Order: sequence, then structure tokens, then C-alpha cells
Amino acid sequence: MKVEFINPFLASLINVLSTMAQTELTPGKPKVKKDEVARGDVSGLIGMVGPQTKGSFSISFDESLALTIMERMLGERPDGINEEVTDMVGEITNMVTGGAKNLLGEKGYDFEMATPIVVSGTGHTITHKCDGAKLMMPFTSEDGNAHIEVSFDTL
Amino acid sequence: MKVEFINPFLASLINVLSTMAQTELTPGKPKVKKDEVARGDVSGLIGMVGPQTKGSFSISFDESLALTIMERMLGERPDGINEEVTDMVGEITNMVTGGAKNLLGEKGYDFEMATPIVVSGTGHTITHKCDGAKLMMPFTSEDGNAHIEVSFDTL
Repeated sequence: MKVEFINPFLASLINVLSTMAQTELTPGKPKVKKDEVARGDVSGLIGMVGPQTKGSFSISFDESLALTIMERMLGERPDGINEEVTDMVGEITNMVTGGAKNLLGEKGYDFEMATPIVVSGTGHTITHKCDGAKLMMPFTSEDGNAHIEVSFDTL
Repeated sequence: MKVEFINPFLASLINVLSTMAQTELTPGKPKVKKDEVARGDVSGLIGMVGPQTKGSFSISFDESLALTIMERMLGERPDGINEEVTDMVGEITNMVTGGAKNLLGEKGYDFEMATPIVVSGTGHTITHKCDGAKLMMPFTSEDGNAHIEVSFDTL
């Protein structure tokens, strides 16, 4: 899988968060994930299935960043990761993947999305089990960190 | 979504674990998941996409049960949840979903599977974000507990 396949997810994420929550994320360097393990407190995950390929996408947030995004969207900061927060993370997962799906579709890579799953738990780790390479991209912000991971089995 | 849609996953899981790891799980009562939150230490998740529906499946294990399964498969007990364990959980996720896919296909419900994702982290929780009902089924064993969750958006 080429590093360029992470760019549609990157562009879509930055667009979604700036539009929905006036939150600017600073992207770091994309990398092929090998031994490195990135931890997050709340993550959205989604499966993708297409005629040429299948794969998975995840986005993980520090709790502080997830709560700040909620505060900017709703005007009130939750005390912790509750159902409203996991709903929002699921929605962001759908929107980011939907945006990337449109961009990749223009290049001839089509896929359908499954429904998202949200994981909560302090400092959990995620491993995409896919024959292809796993790409990871970290993001920093004033309010905490996030990272995305993408894996397609034949790209 | 009807409770009967969890049965193919239940049957497939019991078959996979007894065949691969001589491990007998005792199923509890299936339930529609509402407020209840079940915790696990290592979970496999996978997306499903078909012409009539899409959804997601997850299987979560207590660490003690995951390590016992590894011990029975490899003859040696890992010290904790390492990459071999997450590989095994990803493989079990694929096999259980593949078995359920065959059983549901016979009833006319077809879907393709995305690639699995494995989450590690003590006591994490999983929420399937799907318009349809979420079904959960707990399992007990001498070596720890497991549970599966299934959600399809239109069944």
C-alpha cells in the first residue's frame, strides 16, 4: 500500500474537524506501522469492502481532545467519555471515511463502508490485521493528540 | 434485528474454539444490548457489507482466557497480550465471521467481510454504532469470560 492512500483520509479528517468543531489538527509524518504502537482513549473503527480490495480504518483520540471537540460542538464539556462522546466519534469515523471514499472513488478505488464501532478504554492500542501495509499518521493539537491508521490488503 | 441472527456466530465460535483450542465455552442468554456495557481485555472486530445490509461483529476475551487459548494452541503460555495473541484473536475473528457468513448465506443473507482489527487494553468497552439493534451474548469458561456482539443495520 502506498503512502498516498492515507492522504484522502488525512484531508477528510482535517476538513471534518475544522468544519464541525473549529478544531485544527497539525499532521505529523505518515509512517508504515511496524512495531510502533500508538495509544488512544477513544477510537472509531470501520471496515471497508470493495471489488479490488478490503481494509480497515481507525481514528484514535486522547480523551482531552475528544472532550474539547464535544465542547465546541455542543457548548458543554462532558465529564468523561460517555455515550454522547462515543456517538460523536462514530459519526466522525463515518464522515472521515465517507470523504476519503469519495476522493478514492475519483481515482478508481471503490469500496463500501461497514458500520462503525467505537472503543473506549484508557490507553488502548489497535492493530489492523491485514495482509497489506498499515499506514499511520499522527496529529497534534493544543487540546491533545489523535492518530489515524489505514490498511488495505491489496493496494 | 432478530435474536436468531446471533445464532450463526454463536455456533461458529463454539466450533472454532473447540476445534482449534479444545476450549469449551458455555453460552449465556443472548440479549439486546442497551445500557449494558461488557468489558474485555482483547477484542477482535470486523465490518460486514452486503447488498441487503451492513454491520459489525466483535468478540472480546478476558486476558486469562486469551492466554489459555494460546497455551492450548501453541503449548506455551505467553506472559501477556503480545502480537502472537492479537494475531490469534484476529484469526479467530475471521474464522468465526466466515463460519457465520456461510450459515447466513444459506438463509439468503449475503455479506462480504472487511479485514479484522484487534484492540488491546485492560477493561475496554465496545459500542457498535449501527441503526439496527445490537445483540450481545456472554460466554463463561473455567479460564475466563468472553462475549460477542453483532449488529446489522437493517435485519
